[in-house]
Amino acid sequence: MNEIDLVDRIRRQAGKSTLELGIGDDCAIYRPRANEDLLFTTDYLIEDVHFRRDMFPPDAVGHKALARSLSDIAAMGGEPRFCLLSLALPPSADQQWIDKFLKGFLKLAKRTGTTLAGGDLSRASKVTCDVMVCGAVPHGKALRRDGAKPGDAIFVTGPLGKPWQTHQRPEPRLDLAKQLRGRANSCMDLSDGISVDLSRLIKASKVGATLDHVPIVKGSTLDQALHGGEDYELLYTMPKRMKPAPGSIRVGEITKGPFGQIEFHAGALEPLGHDHFRKRGKSK
Amino acid sequence: MNEIDLVDRIRRQAGKSTLELGIGDDCAIYRPRANEDLLFTTDYLIEDVHFRRDMFPPDAVGHKALARSLSDIAAMGGEPRFCLLSLALPPSADQQWIDKFLKGFLKLAKRTGTTLAGGDLSRASKVTCDVMVCGAVPHGKALRRDGAKPGDAIFVTGPLGKPWQTHQRPEPRLDLAKQLRGRANSCMDLSDGISVDLSRLIKASKVGATLDHVPIVKGSTLDQALHGGEDYELLYTMPKRMKPAPGSIRVGEITKGPFGQIEFHAGALEPLGHDHFRKRGKSK
Repeated sequence: MNEIDLVDRIRRQAGKSTLELGIGDDCAIYRPRANEDLLFTTDYLIEDVHFRRDMFPPDAVGHKALARSLSDIAAMGGEPRFCLLSLALPPSADQQWIDKFLKGFLKLAKRTGTTLAGGDLSRASKVTCDVMVCGAVPHGKALRRDGAKPGDAIFVTGPLGKPWQTHQRPEPRLDLAKQLRGRANSCMDLSDGISVDLSRLIKASKVGATLDHVPIVKGSTLDQALHGGEDYELLYTMPKRMKPAPGSIRVGEITKGPFGQIEFHAGALEPLGHDHFRKRGKSK
Repeated sequence: MNEIDLVDRIRRQAGKSTLELGIGDDCAIYRPRANEDLLFTTDYLIEDVHFRRDMFPPDAVGHKALARSLSDIAAMGGEPRFCLLSLALPPSADQQWIDKFLKGFLKLAKRTGTTLAGGDLSRASKVTCDVMVCGAVPHGKALRRDGAKPGDAIFVTGPLGKPWQTHQRPEPRLDLAKQLRGRANSCMDLSDGISVDLSRLIKASKVGATLDHVPIVKGSTLDQALHGGEDYELLYTMPKRMKPAPGSIRVGEITKGPFGQIEFHAGALEPLGHDHFRKRGKSK
């Protein structure tokens, strides 16, 4: 296998591009549609950091590599337009591994209308994926983190605390997210645990929050639901008079303050969710 | 150091964003300007694959991580708008290393008008950078690989064969590229060696080529100039009546065929440039 063959293979499997120019030139070319704001996000999925090759089948790695970025597009109320796949591989990831990876990646891409428009290939000592997704929302309609208002109800789109080791094919909440446009005051996705993600949302919005109900997936603990990462559910706030998106669960309320603080069971909740650059020093 | 602090640090150093929304939310938001086509490219720069940490000062790593993608934007005749930086770091890359890396990255970003709009941070066993750049050209004006015409003269924007180990701060040819818009029939950047890159260009354009002059940088060999990667000069073709961009060197001519074949010194030149997924088996 050489790089040109691998690019050809990916191009064939990716199918028809909806862009002005797709895989194969120095850049992909996208012609923006009238009245759209474009959303951009990128996420790493790295062997032995985010997954283990002996525990994750290759198609699940492909699925999850794309799902992580699609979840960010959902978090802004966006529809995916296209993606770039940067893939670095050790020699031990052979043609069969790559084909299965691509199958998982492209199955989710096709189902969500995300054209694979380009990327980069390289060698590396570990399987390393970085997936950039471009999405779109109507002009000014993106759901941001900084719009939460005191009195807003806080919702999540499903129970929390899925153990990331076994949560191999997360489903980005793209359909729910579109329904929140123009209704939710703020939104983000839960990828590092609600304790740290809600803390980020209320800091961006310059408000506080009270958490009074934490829905937990079967078999998980409250600690996992609060501080476990990688649920890929949406966390959003909206005025109490609004009807939440189907399946949403109310978890609390936005308060005036104390600024940036989450009240939980009459105490302040520490943001102990996932942080790549910090050792977790929890006192349990 | 934790991830939130590192993001804050990057945001402060990146300075004012020209986007609707920059670092800190799930996605960056870009509002397209009227009548622009958007260009997208992404490039890996990985420790022990593309550079060695004991030979490359951290600011050169930062410079080169961005320069590689900017060179792709130049190759399409584009102006950079913004970038996303995906950075994965081993613990041995400490705060000082990161600060110097960012200094090199942001110096080039500011000089070229490229806003750092977001990205991702992770742990990894090697320093791993993936840089996505979005650029823009006026509607329909992108310089593609597939437009070369028989009779076009072929140019490069400088002598070739710079040894990549010492070529630490390549300068993306953004200014030259803009002058080629509406004049060059095809263009790409030389990142894998002219033998393989010209081969890609003529295959995309369904033509052949004759190479009759290869300008070599001082101290390098013809072999390095033909097959060495990472020159980051532009390779372009234009009708003979047109005036080339300043400093360009004529290297040959586009022919009707044989399709995809480069004639050099009365023989066919094999595309032996850099390929991550192939062992180089040159018969020298």
